[in-house]
Amino acid sequence: MKPVSIGILGLGTVGCGTVNVLMRNANEISRRAGRAIQIAMAATRDPTRHRGCDTSAFELVRDPHAVVEHADAQVIVELIGGEQEARELVLKAIGNRKHVVTANKALIAVHGNEIFEAAQRNGVVVAFEAAVGGGISIIKTIREGLAGNRIDQIAGIINGTGNFILTGMRDQGREFDEVLEEAQRLGYAEADPSFDIDGTDAAHKLTILAAIAFGIPLQHDRVYTEGIGGLTREDIGHAGDLGYQIKHLGIAKRMPEGIEMRVHPTLIPQRRLLANVNGVMNAILVNGDAVGPTLHYGAGAGSDPTASAVVADIVDVVRALTTDPENRVPHLAFQPDSLADVKILQQDDFESAYFLSLNAIDRPGVLADVTRILADLQISIEAILQKEPPSNEDTVPVIILTQETREQYMNEALSRIEALDAIPRPVKRIRVEHLHD
Amino acid sequence: MKPVSIGILGLGTVGCGTVNVLMRNANEISRRAGRAIQIAMAATRDPTRHRGCDTSAFELVRDPHAVVEHADAQVIVELIGGEQEARELVLKAIGNRKHVVTANKALIAVHGNEIFEAAQRNGVVVAFEAAVGGGISIIKTIREGLAGNRIDQIAGIINGTGNFILTGMRDQGREFDEVLEEAQRLGYAEADPSFDIDGTDAAHKLTILAAIAFGIPLQHDRVYTEGIGGLTREDIGHAGDLGYQIKHLGIAKRMPEGIEMRVHPTLIPQRRLLANVNGVMNAILVNGDAVGPTLHYGAGAGSDPTASAVVADIVDVVRALTTDPENRVPHLAFQPDSLADVKILQQDDFESAYFLSLNAIDRPGVLADVTRILADLQISIEAILQKEPPSNEDTVPVIILTQETREQYMNEALSRIEALDAIPRPVKRIRVEHLHD
Repeated sequence: MKPVSIGILGLGTVGCGTVNVLMRNANEISRRAGRAIQIAMAATRDPTRHRGCDTSAFELVRDPHAVVEHADAQVIVELIGGEQEARELVLKAIGNRKHVVTANKALIAVHGNEIFEAAQRNGVVVAFEAAVGGGISIIKTIREGLAGNRIDQIAGIINGTGNFILTGMRDQGREFDEVLEEAQRLGYAEADPSFDIDGTDAAHKLTILAAIAFGIPLQHDRVYTEGIGGLTREDIGHAGDLGYQIKHLGIAKRMPEGIEMRVHPTLIPQRRLLANVNGVMNAILVNGDAVGPTLHYGAGAGSDPTASAVVADIVDVVRALTTDPENRVPHLAFQPDSLADVKILQQDDFESAYFLSLNAIDRPGVLADVTRILADLQISIEAILQKEPPSNEDTVPVIILTQETREQYMNEALSRIEALDAIPRPVKRIRVEHLHD
Repeated sequence: MKPVSIGILGLGTVGCGTVNVLMRNANEISRRAGRAIQIAMAATRDPTRHRGCDTSAFELVRDPHAVVEHADAQVIVELIGGEQEARELVLKAIGNRKHVVTANKALIAVHGNEIFEAAQRNGVVVAFEAAVGGGISIIKTIREGLAGNRIDQIAGIINGTGNFILTGMRDQGREFDEVLEEAQRLGYAEADPSFDIDGTDAAHKLTILAAIAFGIPLQHDRVYTEGIGGLTREDIGHAGDLGYQIKHLGIAKRMPEGIEMRVHPTLIPQRRLLANVNGVMNAILVNGDAVGPTLHYGAGAGSDPTASAVVADIVDVVRALTTDPENRVPHLAFQPDSLADVKILQQDDFESAYFLSLNAIDRPGVLADVTRILADLQISIEAILQKEPPSNEDTVPVIILTQETREQYMNEALSRIEALDAIPRPVKRIRVEHLHD
């Protein structure tokens, strides 16, 4: 089937991320979408500037209107940000009956009602998953995954810069300005970070979440907004003394008298999952009447995570563009003729760290024998814990934590250890995963 | 537009939950789907038995084949569980060109390849969001939300019964059998809990997750599976001593040599989010090359949460059934003519608990004045914390945590407190949310 052509407006952080993800995962993506996606043209302020993506495969222009007018481009990806120019270009693309994908939360929060009406009139889709929560597919989850629910409440950490600052103030006991400076140095905060700090960015995102959760029009000027600029490390310390964390939350609640929409610093009990979302990560807690509480966590900004959402939207539009029934979402995510015959590994090939629980007869040299066996099989020890023997036992419990190894070496080690006279019972082995979240 | 008719197979826990959610949220659902959903017929073993849902609005039969043959039913919802009869009914429904929605993980894991091929041939959809993670829309997230990613790893707590037992063993220091008995008493574990405990249930779910993440066929017999029956409270205690929690995880990893699929008890560091998923809750950590780590948390079982996923699938099918372009997913989740003009509350109407940080001149009676003002406005105090004064200050910091009140009362209280001679500086007010996760 013919590839779908897209045009991209803006090759900044997210624009280049989108180009990179589309190129790097071209095979994976077309196995899912059933068609290839090709970039016909991209517009950027300075086409000669070196940037973080390979632009050799498509036409690079200065004039964004050339992209919006491009005869072949069926989908326009708006990644220039800001409100006025973006609004004009998106409306023009819609007028030209092109579908639009955008990461622009200000555009959607402020001009979304107008834009969606135009899209509806012209029979096109405007997709905006990347506008809220970066790579977390929270728009899709609320719009589709929770479609059976009456949603009562949304509470989210929806600005990564602010969360990075609050996490830094707490973990390092530093003041606001110091951590902000670090965030700027690391590229997590803009040169002018005011929209992140004063809550404007979070208010735009909350506007969108509240609309899709409650079925109300976008009303960004009705969000009560407080920033985090006034918080001190003493506030954070006092909250900690009482068992709370301070997070900058966007909250939308359905109350008997109406809907609350507010963005402000908020104390939440330390044991709640949201209290443990740190650094630049985002998370959104959604409560539905049927599903109960759900939490959606991931990177809320950055080049690749935002591109992840942009590309998901492009794939959605590609599926909608292709009316034949095979181009629904495939049952197993990938097109039936694209399933891969990848080898499934057997137990011997697994790689894992291990927690071993032994009972050893309490006499000299046992631990030396055990550790020698592990060393002979190149298994490194992370920690050993020898416990007090229970009063009625003649063996002592020994706990060993190992580093990663291949399971076949561990199997061999265990059979040698269990052959030792001083180890009367089978060793209990539990695998360890350090995970990355 | 004409309602869509569905037929339901099975009115057990999930079947009745589905009826309840469809009826309770009928308005919310049709505002989203653009069409009403009506139940034409439901089959149940004993139509005379009293059950947890109102069955007066549709025909109740004993023979499930009558549902699958029903002329009007366009979607068949399979909720009888088990493998053989379910397979036969689903294949028959597909042969009759009816779409299918199912919550049956064993059916999909074991017979999915055959079922999807039949669906493909007959041009119908088989939707199975409820088969994994209950109300968490993890299938949709992986299939669509992460469509731009090369997924590297999935690790999940995907059996609520097992997680309830492990949480109980840790929190209450009890043995396996005691907590299992409690789980059975509370209805979290079946009379025969072997599939939950030996890992079969989790292996079925992992089979499905691995297929849609990596683009491989369903291969349930290739999952390495260990149950949790051998774990003791000592194991959990020793893991805790080393800074780890033991969770029963389903893990699917892309390795250079192939794919690992395994279900087994696993130590994970205490600070990881998955380590803090307790009781019957489920959570799945998905790592994609573009998005990085994402976590998806919610109720993994139960009547209403599972029904949430079943209904979301029905809505998806309804949208696919309706080919006119307005029946795509609406931009703001609800159909444009169904947006509601709900009142947005002003700040004065917000309800919240508060953290107040005061600086008080250190003399008798100040705290009495402050607490009197709060009491006069019916604001209850949760905690008061008087800190040591910094050496160079003549005021003492006082922290007050209040219970929930209306913001207008708090505003009044603060203006009265700030008018006190002994309170020289403005009071800092931060809102508190206890959240529910």
